[in-house]
Order: sequence, then C-alpha cells, then structure tokens
Amino acid sequence: MLNRRTIVAALFLAGMCASQTTALAQTDPLPSWNEGKTKSAILDFVRKVTQEGGPNFVKPAERIATFDNDGTLWAEQPAYFQLLFAIDEIKQLAPSRPDWKGKEPFRSILAGNIKGLVASGEKGLLQVVAATHAGMTTSEFDQSVAKWLATARHPTKKRPYTEMVYQPQLELLAHLRANGFKTFIVSGGGVEFMRGFAEKTYGIPPEQVVGSSGVVKFRMGANGKPELFKEAKIEFIDDNAGKPVGINRFIGRRPILAFGNSDGDLQMLQYTVAGDGPRLALIVHHTDAEREWAYDRTSRIGKLDKALDEGKARGWTIVDMKADWKTVFPPER
Amino acid sequence: MLNRRTIVAALFLAGMCASQTTALAQTDPLPSWNEGKTKSAILDFVRKVTQEGGPNFVKPAERIATFDNDGTLWAEQPAYFQLLFAIDEIKQLAPSRPDWKGKEPFRSILAGNIKGLVASGEKGLLQVVAATHAGMTTSEFDQSVAKWLATARHPTKKRPYTEMVYQPQLELLAHLRANGFKTFIVSGGGVEFMRGFAEKTYGIPPEQVVGSSGVVKFRMGANGKPELFKEAKIEFIDDNAGKPVGINRFIGRRPILAFGNSDGDLQMLQYTVAGDGPRLALIVHHTDAEREWAYDRTSRIGKLDKALDEGKARGWTIVDMKADWKTVFPPER
Repeated sequence: MLNRRTIVAALFLAGMCASQTTALAQTDPLPSWNEGKTKSAILDFVRKVTQEGGPNFVKPAERIATFDNDGTLWAEQPAYFQLLFAIDEIKQLAPSRPDWKGKEPFRSILAGNIKGLVASGEKGLLQVVAATHAGMTTSEFDQSVAKWLATARHPTKKRPYTEMVYQPQLELLAHLRANGFKTFIVSGGGVEFMRGFAEKTYGIPPEQVVGSSGVVKFRMGANGKPELFKEAKIEFIDDNAGKPVGINRFIGRRPILAFGNSDGDLQMLQYTVAGDGPRLALIVHHTDAEREWAYDRTSRIGKLDKALDEGKARGWTIVDMKADWKTVFPPER
Repeated sequence: MLNRRTIVAALFLAGMCASQTTALAQTDPLPSWNEGKTKSAILDFVRKVTQEGGPNFVKPAERIATFDNDGTLWAEQPAYFQLLFAIDEIKQLAPSRPDWKGKEPFRSILAGNIKGLVASGEKGLLQVVAATHAGMTTSEFDQSVAKWLATARHPTKKRPYTEMVYQPQLELLAHLRANGFKTFIVSGGGVEFMRGFAEKTYGIPPEQVVGSSGVVKFRMGANGKPELFKEAKIEFIDDNAGKPVGINRFIGRRPILAFGNSDGDLQMLQYTVAGDGPRLALIVHHTDAEREWAYDRTSRIGKLDKALDEGKARGWTIVDMKADWKTVFPPER
C-alpha cells in the first residue's frame, strides 16, 4: 500500500530513527584512548567532516580512511606475523620435503635459526614465499591461513594472533564507520593473507583490503571446475610509493584520513594530506616496552624515522602508545 | 540520555522503519523489463537469496554482483566508447602534434579513416592509448574524461554517452542494492575512464570499479606536491581469464551474480557459477537492430559465440534485448 500518508509516515519514522541513533551515540566512542590532544584531534576531525552545512563537511562517499596493518592495527614484533605464518608452514611441510634439510633458507628455519633466515636476504625470503604462498589454489591458501589463525599462538604473548590487535584502533574503525566512513586496509602484507581475518577481526570486508600480491592464474581444475592458481611470482608490492599507487588502483579516491606507523607509510600519508579540504594523517609511535614494544628509528621491523621527522614538522597526529592508549590489546576471550 | 527505555524505543522504531521500507518496495522494481521468464528468473533469484531462514539465504556481505560495462551496462557500437574518446582526444591534440600527419595510426584517425586505425592493429591501438591515456597525471586524465563526457555525442544516436546506458540495467542495479547486494563493474575498459562516470551514472563508487589499467607511478610534482603519473605501459587487462583474476584481486570474494554480454565475460560467468549455493549467470544478447544494435557470433565488437553456446547449454539466463526490455535507453534529459 503506497500512498501519500504511508510515505509521510515512513519519512517521519526515518527521521526519528536518525535522531535516535544520534542520541545513542552520545557515549564515549573511544573509551580505550586517554583524554588529551591526540584523542581530541581525532574526535574533532570526525565531528567537522560530518557536520552538515559546516565549512569542512565531506560527503559520505568521500570519507575514505586507509589504515596500514602491521604495527598500526595489530602488532608486528618480533617479526611480521605473516612471516611467522610462513615459518610455521615450512615446519609443517618439512616431512614431505626432505631436500630442505640441506638447503637454505629452509635449513635455518627448521633449526629455529631466524638469523640464518635473515642472512638469506631477499632471495631467501622469496623462496619462503614461493614455498608457502604459491603452487596452490587461492582456496587452498585460504584454508591454510584459516587453520593457522585458529591454532597458532604469538611466541611471547601466547595469544592468538587475531587477539594481537589494538583495542583503541578497533574502536576508531567502528567510530569512523558509524560516521559514514568507509575503512580500508592499505598494507605491505599479502592481500589474501589479510583477507583471512580482516572481516571478522576488524569489520573490514575483503573488497576493502589492499595489499601486496603474487601472480594468480585462472585455469580449469582437474574436476572441470575453474580455479585460481597462485604462482611463485611477485605482482605488486603495496609499500612505500606503492601505497598511493595501490590506493589509486583499488580505491580510486584519495583518502581524507590515513593511519600508519612506519616509513613504509610515508608516501600514503603525503598523498593523503596533499588533497584539498580537511585531512588527517596519523602515526602510531611504538613507545610502550611494557605493554607492547618500544622501537622506532633503528628497528629492523617497522622502522619509523623519516616519517616521524616529517610528521612532527608538518603537525601530523603522532600517537604515543604509552601515553595515549589506556589499553593496548582487547581482553582475552 | 541512554537508558533502557530509550534503547527499547530505538529498537522499536528501527523495526518499524524496516517494515516501512519493505512496504515501500512492493511496486515493480524492474518496470523496464517485460514480464516473462527472464524477469522472473532475476526476481526469483533476488527473493530466494534474501529470504532469511530460507534454504538459499545468502548473507548480505556475500551478495556480490559483478557487471561487465561495454554492451552490458551501456552500448558499445559502432566501437567501444573509450576508443571514441581516444579518437576525439587525438583530434583535439593534433594541432600541437604536426608530426602525426605523416604517421600511422594518427594519420588515419585525423582523416576519419577508422579502417586505417583498425589496420594498424594492436601496435597502433597501443600508440593511441599512449598518446591519450598516458604522459599525464591521474588528475589531468580525469579532467579530460570529464570534459569529453560533458560535451561529446554518440555518432548516430546523437546523445551524450552517459545516456547510452540501459534503463533496465539501471533498475536492476538499484534493485540489487536495495536488497543488500554490493554492485561492481568488472570490465575490460580502463578503470580510470570508467570511474569518470560510474558513480553518477550507475551509482557504483570508484572503489567498486574493476578494469584494465596502465602503470602508474608516484612522484613529487613540480609544486612539491605528490602526484600519480600515468605511464605508457599496460599493467593489467581485465578481460577473458583476466576477469576472475581481477575479481580475486580487487574484490576477494566470488560473485553470486554475474552479468556479461560477450565471450570476454565467459570466464567470469564460469567462475561465478562454480561457487557453492545459489548463483545467477546472465548474458545480454543484442537482438534489437531497431532500438539498439543486433550482433553476436561474427561481430568485431562484443563477439558473443562460445559464451552463447555455453550459456544455453548450462541454462544461464540469456536476455533477449528485443523481447525482454520494454525500453532500452533512459528518457532524454
């Protein structure tokens, strides 16, 4: 029954629903962030870009927020978690690969000698990627990631990796989405690896995950069904200058907010703030050796040096983990 | 004021709003589709995947629909519109490029000799792409597309290209979105070209457009601002077997509905129906020489041969444009 009265009633109710939603949102949306200038900078930014009729209003379609993953949404010490996954995979595959015992970097990995793996350099790393991220269909890879995430534990914190995420960031992602933002991951990590947990863990669907990738080929499987096969060939590295390129390729729109934690995020942050209108660039500074880790300019993982200087000079929002975050990780499940 | 009563009231109102939306949707969502088995197949599919508790229910997050663009969402005769754009650009740039007068394929284009352009083959086409789609920043390219779309007219229909879209498909896109689907373009067309009109014309935002692309580099512009520069090098062709690869790369989830019109869509359709649960594969068959064009197995543009055979054999939904579409193009503005 569609008549004028029905329509008016619907619009009236829709209006009430909207005000009701606003009323419900009056509680602190970022309870794990300590009060201070960092939290205020975030809340003020969200407020001004969503204020209809205000000078800084941004249409919902243009409220694009991009987040690095390693060290920004979840931890990255003692090594990128995707590398820890690859090491576990090597160990699991080893019984069927007796030749690995005498071959670097596999010998080092199987002996628990991470320094040996590091010494094998980029060539060694690519061999590890080829052995654990290629030579299988995308579905098979998804299954191995799912299995690992369900069972593996962080070497020192002893928690599942999906609990090694930052509670303040989960709140920020939710707050942005509640304010009409579309949240994306833009990370140097492998896109298929991240898609294995991004939706459940961060509420970010696969189509909003931008990452590094290998070449994938379409082929007909043995059962006559089409499948996608992962080849041992790098296709795209979504890091440093690759990040704005990835943003352009996958999102096609410049973010108004970008959040990183290392020099690998510098170009994404530069590209973000170079747009017209209100922009917010944020950097997690790992300053908390007690609850998480403390590292920056000289770290082998997540080096933050140039971006820290440029961020300070340009007034970007530098999050001091120790001072700004009331809690780091979510409560154990 | 957040108390129990407020929450109950909010939930109650939210419930009423939801039912109201349902009531409003009782009118025919596809008025430009004639009644018959094609329209029923579409409406039945949408109904069954959205029926909560039903055997074919699909969660909203998994309701991914992918549409080819040329010949599926808008027309593609007498040539792909992006090629017509490139030809117009060549003509406009010609005064500053006197060397083109003696050089193929430019000489043919400037003489209005399309056969000469075709005769120059892939090499000629790549030269045209290099001259019109590269050697500039992404912003400069966006501006040239916007200018062309605002002023150019189709050579025989004399309408703006953004009015050469199919009204029945606009209704289908809207109906899918109203039912929780996320609609994507997956097309052989250039991704940046399509993003120039997809949002306004189809309601499909840039981040849901998958297409072919050239290499883009990040660099610091003369003004010290970062920019993205388009190079004359093909990066990815999103056609044929490239379509499922593009879907995996950009969307990361298998569609439950895919719509194409040519052999270039075959692998996307195969990949779509190979998934578990309900799937719908659709093909526009151009059968309407009067209102649009009639072509299939022997056409140079939008050849539909293998996909037509396979579609018929496997019971895919073949849209007979002449019989199934009440109107083809939207009313003139």
